Amino acid sequence: MEFRTRTSVYRHWQLTVDGPVATLTMDVDEQGGLVEGYELKLNSYDLGVDIELYDAVQRLRFEHPQVRTVVLTGGKDRVFSAGANIRMLAAATHPSKVNFCKFTNETRNGIEDATANSGQTYLAAINGSASGGGYELALACEHLMLVDDRSSNVSLPELPLLGVLPGTGGLTRIVDKRLVRRDRADYFATKAEGIGGRKAVQWRLVDEVVPRPQWDESVRTRALDLAARSHRPADAAGIELTPLAKERTDDAISYRYVEARLDRTSRAVEITVSAPADGPPAELAALHEQGDAYWPLALGRELDDLILDLRTNELELGTWILRTAGSAERVLAFDDQLVAHQDDDWLVNEIVHYLKRTLKRLDVTSRSLIALIEPGSCFAGSLLELALAADRSFQLAGVFEDGDPDAEPAAISVGSMNLGPLPMGNGLTRLQTRYLGDEAGLKAVAEHVGVPLLADDAEALGLVTFAPDDIDWADEVRITLEERSAFSPDALTGLEANYRFAGPETLETKIFGRLTAWQNWIFNRPNAAGPDGALRRFGTGRRPTFDRKRV
Amino acid sequence: MEFRTRTSVYRHWQLTVDGPVATLTMDVDEQGGLVEGYELKLNSYDLGVDIELYDAVQRLRFEHPQVRTVVLTGGKDRVFSAGANIRMLAAATHPSKVNFCKFTNETRNGIEDATANSGQTYLAAINGSASGGGYELALACEHLMLVDDRSSNVSLPELPLLGVLPGTGGLTRIVDKRLVRRDRADYFATKAEGIGGRKAVQWRLVDEVVPRPQWDESVRTRALDLAARSHRPADAAGIELTPLAKERTDDAISYRYVEARLDRTSRAVEITVSAPADGPPAELAALHEQGDAYWPLALGRELDDLILDLRTNELELGTWILRTAGSAERVLAFDDQLVAHQDDDWLVNEIVHYLKRTLKRLDVTSRSLIALIEPGSCFAGSLLELALAADRSFQLAGVFEDGDPDAEPAAISVGSMNLGPLPMGNGLTRLQTRYLGDEAGLKAVAEHVGVPLLADDAEALGLVTFAPDDIDWADEVRITLEERSAFSPDALTGLEANYRFAGPETLETKIFGRLTAWQNWIFNRPNAAGPDGALRRFGTGRRPTFDRKRV
Repeated sequence: MEFRTRTSVYRHWQLTVDGPVATLTMDVDEQGGLVEGYELKLNSYDLGVDIELYDAVQRLRFEHPQVRTVVLTGGKDRVFSAGANIRMLAAATHPSKVNFCKFTNETRNGIEDATANSGQTYLAAINGSASGGGYELALACEHLMLVDDRSSNVSLPELPLLGVLPGTGGLTRIVDKRLVRRDRADYFATKAEGIGGRKAVQWRLVDEVVPRPQWDESVRTRALDLAARSHRPADAAGIELTPLAKERTDDAISYRYVEARLDRTSRAVEITVSAPADGPPAELAALHEQGDAYWPLALGRELDDLILDLRTNELELGTWILRTAGSAERVLAFDDQLVAHQDDDWLVNEIVHYLKRTLKRLDVTSRSLIALIEPGSCFAGSLLELALAADRSFQLAGVFEDGDPDAEPAAISVGSMNLGPLPMGNGLTRLQTRYLGDEAGLKAVAEHVGVPLLADDAEALGLVTFAPDDIDWADEVRITLEERSAFSPDALTGLEANYRFAGPETLETKIFGRLTAWQNWIFNRPNAAGPDGALRRFGTGRRPTFDRKRV
Repeated sequence: MEFRTRTSVYRHWQLTVDGPVATLTMDVDEQGGLVEGYELKLNSYDLGVDIELYDAVQRLRFEHPQVRTVVLTGGKDRVFSAGANIRMLAAATHPSKVNFCKFTNETRNGIEDATANSGQTYLAAINGSASGGGYELALACEHLMLVDDRSSNVSLPELPLLGVLPGTGGLTRIVDKRLVRRDRADYFATKAEGIGGRKAVQWRLVDEVVPRPQWDESVRTRALDLAARSHRPADAAGIELTPLAKERTDDAISYRYVEARLDRTSRAVEITVSAPADGPPAELAALHEQGDAYWPLALGRELDDLILDLRTNELELGTWILRTAGSAERVLAFDDQLVAHQDDDWLVNEIVHYLKRTLKRLDVTSRSLIALIEPGSCFAGSLLELALAADRSFQLAGVFEDGDPDAEPAAISVGSMNLGPLPMGNGLTRLQTRYLGDEAGLKAVAEHVGVPLLADDAEALGLVTFAPDDIDWADEVRITLEERSAFSPDALTGLEANYRFAGPETLETKIFGRLTAWQNWIFNRPNAAGPDGALRRFGTGRRPTFDRKRV
């Protein structure tokens, strides 16, 4: 499975730009399913459709700085989108279902991120019925318009028809984002035929309904209204996201700054992220000139693609070992440039938020993350986030006496990028989450910004888990990796999902922490996924057989 | 399964009281398991052990007002508690496992509630190794003391040994209550042999370690320190929680104020809660005199027992229909008495918190809750909470013309008990949760305190879901109940678990909303519960076989 694509080869979406308003039209090719066995009727989608949507959302931010409103609409008659394809879901393995939902959730969160942080507000122009995942996609938009024609409506029919939950944030967004009263939300989620017209507005399920004759004009007006609120530059030139150079063999995935070695024997991936060979360009104009070759953006794209590739294609490689290599000073110099210009340069702002989203992807990845901080590494600033995202980190005290006794000992550095610009899904930085309830500890760390910290100091400050010396290093690391590889993969997923979301809760943490867990449980139950379960029997004309016991 | 017990018949716990300090000693009878097939070695527990613990925690609050510190300790040599019995868990059905974890979680939350709201602070005197659920029990205490003898320690060995999660709040309490750094928490939860001594203190796993020679004296001193902080009255007389009168047949459960009719055909339970026959006693002394016959307390005990009974014994009765009968004025009069004296009378305070906990039990019950508000009902104040806890409520507009055309139409009343004393697990009242983000709506409701609201007004204010009239009532209710009974029980559980926890998150909502969902998923996976899974293979000398795919 490959996540790289580009606008010119989309099969399911049309992207048109007209001044400040872009229109993203979902027009799914029925015969364009990723695998055999189902037709993508009624604008239903599979992972392939969502990979294109993700690509479009990304390109809108980087390639179209003038776009301030994105109208998301359907290209079919009478149907906006029927949601995830049921036959695809019914036939999918449990890991595929879960992975599919995770990615679609991330894309919908990305739509909200564009609205909140990029000045690109998404407007759902629901020009037909939006059911299940189709309505959930609309729910990720800031403003929902529904055509008022007596047949179009919105619905979440998963529970009554399929015996599962709406899997991409619908339940959470209904009650926590749109603040629909929970008893109405309950009724709505059991009413397969949906709700339209004025009642959909009264219940806050959409923001407005518009009769068909006024539809196009109303959508256009609303889109321009929303555009007027944006502070995006009107005259900036976008940068092109060029095809990502990637080499993939059975045991390695290589990009320019990111390398992954797949070790099937130990069921681990060794990932090394490299600092740039040169410092940042002195001028912003040169930064724009570099475009997607600018190190932080290049790195973000590579890491993003690697995470998606490994998550989808390498299910049995349960531990990701994170290393860095190169000059910490250079990393911090790029970071400082990003922090200095996030507020006054649209591209810098996009790059910072992209790094943020990529690191968030790591947080919700169901793999054990182990950071190894060794001589020659550059866990500084934005790259230190990799160690802070890890479940455990080891920093070598001293050097490898048998390897390179004259090396500089490994150091880590806290930088400005660790203090705000890269929050987790819980709304806190990884440092704030790490020092939850420990104000003094957090303050002590903030006082060491820019100071290279050797292992003992980093451990004393609480920034790394363990700081073994050369004598203990190999054994400690080996035992951790061997243990990790021997544990129940399911229990590790549950453990990590609970620990990584400490502190406050947000829409995002609720979606990934709770909604996803319940959905995974349901996906694993015979009542949904068994041969007589609702998901498998849908469309066969035979009713599901349920074990009636409530759990 | 029966939840009623009393101190004199405990098999597993000893409760002794010495002035302001009670000692609750866990000394599990190996042969005292609830069902055949396992021995409760090493102070491991099953539901029967926990039923006694719950009873003791309740009795301490009501029968022992002078107790200000409860020392929770072990009665065995070298072991505090080994946690939930593994053979019991391995043999249990999926619903039994989940139900067992829910009840144990509620009891541990009750321990925290006693510490926070009752002036009875729990001190864990860990006089031996505390593993898994044994340590989780200690984590529910306010202050954790561990004996420092080189062998005693605390551990969460579930993941490495059993391939499941610590199921009673351990992961959440570690990172969100005790604020253990997540990488340390990760290490701890994979280290089956546990952590003791000074490191356990440094990592915040316990509050202090004490050598054996100083143990008894130190525990005593600390217990008295904690007692000194409490405002419980020194000279009050407790009230006895007398045996609950209960009649149970195959199709009905009856108490004095609570009736349940079990309808196995429609898979529903019709529950009717009755108002008292008389008003509240005029004086507090008379209230104390009434003891557990005082209506709000009697009602709380009956409802509590009914919820536990139905949850455990009637898995296929998936819908609970909630009705009330009697005088709303009398309900409100009792409520007003409770609110007026919660701050100055320890017993009133206990009763209010008990009602709160009982209603919270309803919130986490995996059954659909439908409130029917009909003529003759008294959904007022504390009883209105039943309708607010429901997934949907129906209030009849007018009367049943064919039944009793001269009846007073059904009315509901908001009272002082709806405005604060009975918060949900998310820390908000049910009204605040209902009107999340709708300050105006909440204010409008608060302006109607004490006003009987007929169906149309209640619906307009947003207090009930639907207000059908006589003509539509029967059909609307019937369709709802039939639908509910036809839907996938698992999907309903997931739906309700997500909707009922809108708004802010707390330790409690994280435990029931997220931790529980992940644990349920893991419990349902072959890697844990299958014939070759870790839970089933534990103790056999054979290693589990895992599907290595990460989900």
